[in-house]
Amino acid sequence: MNDNVGKDTVKVGAEALQEFVAQVFARLEVPALQAVEAAEVLVNADVRGVDSHGVARLPYYVDRLDKGLIESVTDISLVRESGASILVDGGNGLGQLVSKRAMEICIEKAGMNGSCMATVRNSNHFGAAAYYAMMALPHGMVGISMTNAYPLQPPTFGKKAMIGANPMAVAIPAGTEAPFVLDMSTSTVAFGKLEIANREGTAMPHGWALDKDGNPTTDPRAGMEGRTLLPLGGTRELGGHKGYGLALMVEILCGVLSGAAFGLAFVEQGLEVPMNLGHFFGAISLQAFSQVERFKEGMDDMLSALKVSSPAQGQERVYTAGELEYLCERERRQKGIPLNHVVADNLRQIGGRYDVACPV
Amino acid sequence: MNDNVGKDTVKVGAEALQEFVAQVFARLEVPALQAVEAAEVLVNADVRGVDSHGVARLPYYVDRLDKGLIESVTDISLVRESGASILVDGGNGLGQLVSKRAMEICIEKAGMNGSCMATVRNSNHFGAAAYYAMMALPHGMVGISMTNAYPLQPPTFGKKAMIGANPMAVAIPAGTEAPFVLDMSTSTVAFGKLEIANREGTAMPHGWALDKDGNPTTDPRAGMEGRTLLPLGGTRELGGHKGYGLALMVEILCGVLSGAAFGLAFVEQGLEVPMNLGHFFGAISLQAFSQVERFKEGMDDMLSALKVSSPAQGQERVYTAGELEYLCERERRQKGIPLNHVVADNLRQIGGRYDVACPV
Repeated sequence: MNDNVGKDTVKVGAEALQEFVAQVFARLEVPALQAVEAAEVLVNADVRGVDSHGVARLPYYVDRLDKGLIESVTDISLVRESGASILVDGGNGLGQLVSKRAMEICIEKAGMNGSCMATVRNSNHFGAAAYYAMMALPHGMVGISMTNAYPLQPPTFGKKAMIGANPMAVAIPAGTEAPFVLDMSTSTVAFGKLEIANREGTAMPHGWALDKDGNPTTDPRAGMEGRTLLPLGGTRELGGHKGYGLALMVEILCGVLSGAAFGLAFVEQGLEVPMNLGHFFGAISLQAFSQVERFKEGMDDMLSALKVSSPAQGQERVYTAGELEYLCERERRQKGIPLNHVVADNLRQIGGRYDVACPV
Repeated sequence: MNDNVGKDTVKVGAEALQEFVAQVFARLEVPALQAVEAAEVLVNADVRGVDSHGVARLPYYVDRLDKGLIESVTDISLVRESGASILVDGGNGLGQLVSKRAMEICIEKAGMNGSCMATVRNSNHFGAAAYYAMMALPHGMVGISMTNAYPLQPPTFGKKAMIGANPMAVAIPAGTEAPFVLDMSTSTVAFGKLEIANREGTAMPHGWALDKDGNPTTDPRAGMEGRTLLPLGGTRELGGHKGYGLALMVEILCGVLSGAAFGLAFVEQGLEVPMNLGHFFGAISLQAFSQVERFKEGMDDMLSALKVSSPAQGQERVYTAGELEYLCERERRQKGIPLNHVVADNLRQIGGRYDVACPV
């Protein structure tokens, strides 16, 4: 997070950036309101400091929309439905919009029945998982969000990428404290960390990645060639089989359960077809279990106890999941978003191509 | 797993062992049918090779029942209920029985509404988390099971144990393959691994534990004194903050949401009071999302592809979560359970004290 700050960056206001992205989507025949919505999701990641999942990915979405590999009009359908479950077909629309719709229905049903779970098929890359989990927060609910993805992780004891980096996010409301927002890939690190180590010419720790022959490596360039990230924990002795288990759980709930593609099917089908990505969402109403105010007091007790607990030697303090992104959002909403110059260049190029004035 | 096999062990049949445990519980005024049920849960862990969570823990339960710190009669109450949610008060009964009841209701409601989530308060140590998640399997459902526990993990950048080892289990049916059963503490390793390293006189890897001053250590004895296990991932650079996030999520869903004790409250209240432990359970009906047979075919495809994927250098093959326990169960049901001699001695002592014939 915040890897860009101060390093050759260009400042831009969140609203101007969002307006730009919306106009680009509109040029690609995304209906105006949908374009605004999708842009809001994308820029929200930049605002929260999750720079890897914001407008840095715009070229990818533009390319897929342009080639017709993502439908410009998102039109989901509810394939199956019961009191606390939905199966959604995303109609190959934008992952951001498919996911928002699915989560909206989840929240509505959880309001009636206490909880609701959703699986989604025929969708696309949805950006940062936290967004959809956090949609539950203002409704006094716990939100859950997961997605599968193109294979990047090998199983423990294996050397071939068989499962995606498969992130999972969980958001839980608090009172005066920042809400608990865990958003994590199930791999030890994201691919971007290899790129940073490579740029800086430093060795990676054991447990991040394998080389192209499937052997452990500490050379970031070899790791980038290998395109194989080790599951959370890394080596077996540090619990890598647990990360592998979590990654596979996400693959099953998002892919197998929904009827989306999963595992090596992504490799077999190649990149030049609709992706048929799968997601899983959940909403759990606090009210069904607790008095909401009492719950929030408990959350504040737990979170603040962690924050004031003794720091380890050499550390200033303890953080809670989502706290840094929460603080980042406050700052960036006021002072603007520092965009990496490569990302800014890409936006200018897209602006030029689609005749949309670029704010950077 | 299977740490005991061949190392100074005594063989005992699962049925004889279960009968013994049930009789001991009955002597402690647990009603006959409840005693049989609780014994079945406990011995199931031994049968699956999870020796740390089976009858090795009997002395703990016996001691708490004997002191009246766990109620001998388990009588749960449904405090709140909606179509897809329940809040259960365990009445300070045996964690095994409280958890079975809660999961039974979850499964019933998921059958009607597609899914159901449960939180539980006023319960006790429930043994192996997988048991309750696996209850969903014969119903064609995904099962989820979590519990909080006495603090053992520090937050990332912290040095004081603030959160329990907080295991989570997820069970998902397959067709001809062994079901997917992930059962993991959210710490890098279980405490037992430190004890094994200590016995064998080997150093621990970095990332397992802190010493009593809250500093990283590779000395198993210092780690045991510290009673502080690092979250999954271990160090920050190997993703330890993700393990910390998962552990805190479990603490919130089990403790804060249910009204159970959580965090340092366990330390403050001490050990000589009812524990007020919290759990979280979930059931998700496959039928609400998919044709069950088609889903199981997808599971078999995914799991078998993993199992035949290229092994890393020096490894024989890839496994899937729960596979080893599944194979272990088949063997131990036939050939008996190899009990560690210390565990066997403890059982004999308990048998002597309560006048129950011990099968080992």
